[in-house]
Amino acid sequence: MTVVTVAATQMACGWDVDENISHADALVREAAGQGAQIILLQELFERCYFCQEQQYDYLSFATPLEENPALRHFRKVAKELNVVLPISFYERANNVFYNSIAIVDADGSVLGIYRKTHIPDGPGYSEKFYFTPGDTGFKVWDTAYGRIGVGICWDQWFPETARAMALMGAELLFFPTAIGSEPQDPTLDSRPHWLNTQCGHAAANVMPVIACNRVGTEQQGNSKITFYGSSFIADETGTRVKEMNQSDTGVITHSFDLAELRTKRQAWGVFRDRRPDLYAPLLTKDGAPS
Amino acid sequence: MTVVTVAATQMACGWDVDENISHADALVREAAGQGAQIILLQELFERCYFCQEQQYDYLSFATPLEENPALRHFRKVAKELNVVLPISFYERANNVFYNSIAIVDADGSVLGIYRKTHIPDGPGYSEKFYFTPGDTGFKVWDTAYGRIGVGICWDQWFPETARAMALMGAELLFFPTAIGSEPQDPTLDSRPHWLNTQCGHAAANVMPVIACNRVGTEQQGNSKITFYGSSFIADETGTRVKEMNQSDTGVITHSFDLAELRTKRQAWGVFRDRRPDLYAPLLTKDGAPS
Repeated sequence: MTVVTVAATQMACGWDVDENISHADALVREAAGQGAQIILLQELFERCYFCQEQQYDYLSFATPLEENPALRHFRKVAKELNVVLPISFYERANNVFYNSIAIVDADGSVLGIYRKTHIPDGPGYSEKFYFTPGDTGFKVWDTAYGRIGVGICWDQWFPETARAMALMGAELLFFPTAIGSEPQDPTLDSRPHWLNTQCGHAAANVMPVIACNRVGTEQQGNSKITFYGSSFIADETGTRVKEMNQSDTGVITHSFDLAELRTKRQAWGVFRDRRPDLYAPLLTKDGAPS
Repeated sequence: MTVVTVAATQMACGWDVDENISHADALVREAAGQGAQIILLQELFERCYFCQEQQYDYLSFATPLEENPALRHFRKVAKELNVVLPISFYERANNVFYNSIAIVDADGSVLGIYRKTHIPDGPGYSEKFYFTPGDTGFKVWDTAYGRIGVGICWDQWFPETARAMALMGAELLFFPTAIGSEPQDPTLDSRPHWLNTQCGHAAANVMPVIACNRVGTEQQGNSKITFYGSSFIADETGTRVKEMNQSDTGVITHSFDLAELRTKRQAWGVFRDRRPDLYAPLLTKDGAPS
């Protein structure tokens, strides 16, 4: 049996951690009720997207893996429902803070964590204030339902993220995120750009991409972001087979046959024909090998 | 003045080299008449796509750079019209054969050649029989109208191609190609996959992509391919701003402000935030560093 059903969820978040967890719990159960086996929740869904402002107090939101409330809750849910749940959380590791995700397998065990590699920064998205760039490197996870790769938000803009996980044997790529309007420029709508980039990863790696994003408007001080949802599931050609709109709460699910995908991927030949001997520029920042 | 007008052309090809050159000539003049300054012609437009069959005789189509008929012709045209013309040709270099492109600048000089890095192989596309994988590595070219990167056909399926050229300072990415139906499976239509992949390169690198493909049905022996055209110009968000259909001959043009694109690219921050320290898997074939 190589057919796997995946789900992406979409919801608005507030400041009450328990309420957000309860809301996410309802969506996970809804998705599981539709047969989903791997269910993606949003980035940092325990709270409002606190990175809108630079507030030293918010550093206290970070916890060690073991103490994170969402993770404690969803380990039990994963076991109960027999589903895989990547859980995004704000991690404190001694004196360092990461934007991390714990991969909870269908028996409730934690397979490990991945720490967000690429950290954005700009008006309304002050992530370099809150997160040290991840040190884990890209990872893939042998879950109960297949080998998955998970990137976090800004990671989704980098072909390197998807390609590395594909090379490491991922069969499905997941990207939880929090993205919306740009406080400094109301005319800037990154939504098509965001969709085209990620559907490109699916197409180039001949591999489904599942992305989920929050909805709702969040105001913090003078900054306001309307998150544009648009959570989607793209197939191995980069075509979106399921997608949500920019405001609804809910879940989308889709089934993929991993064996069939593998056959298509090997038939297409792109992994056969790669030329790492000529890829040295990719390991530079400015294209000029030192 | 940083506004540049680019063009993609689209036509069917036959076996008569002079006729194909003459047809391409007319399209180049049409594009230049519309103000185009960098004009993209198709891959190997001097002939039918001879790689459908493995024929030793066809190796004789290859010539050294200096002796290629299309290049001789279009160097004069480039100078006359003051346009940049990347010219795809089958190159013989002593005992080796490459799928190459010569970059003809607006004064008719040849800036250099790039040899196709990624060589496909499959029913109807026997390129590994005809072409040795390129040894030049990815290149960018300081033309009269901006720094451009040019990949050839199968190269367009690899995020590595576009990313390397972007890192090397390309401002516009060009991909001449020859792609259509799959002789072994009439139900396989790679067109959406092809579009999604390349629009993903544009989006991920915040950089326009210009692609052109032949049209028409070509039969060779028992093999038949209908080339699906669909030549397009995508903007820096990966949205197609101009595109042709699957059968028409003609040209499309579009103007981009390179200074404005640079501003957008640096504002978006993806090049700032890359992490080459974690990209080692990209230089492997199977994700496992040796």
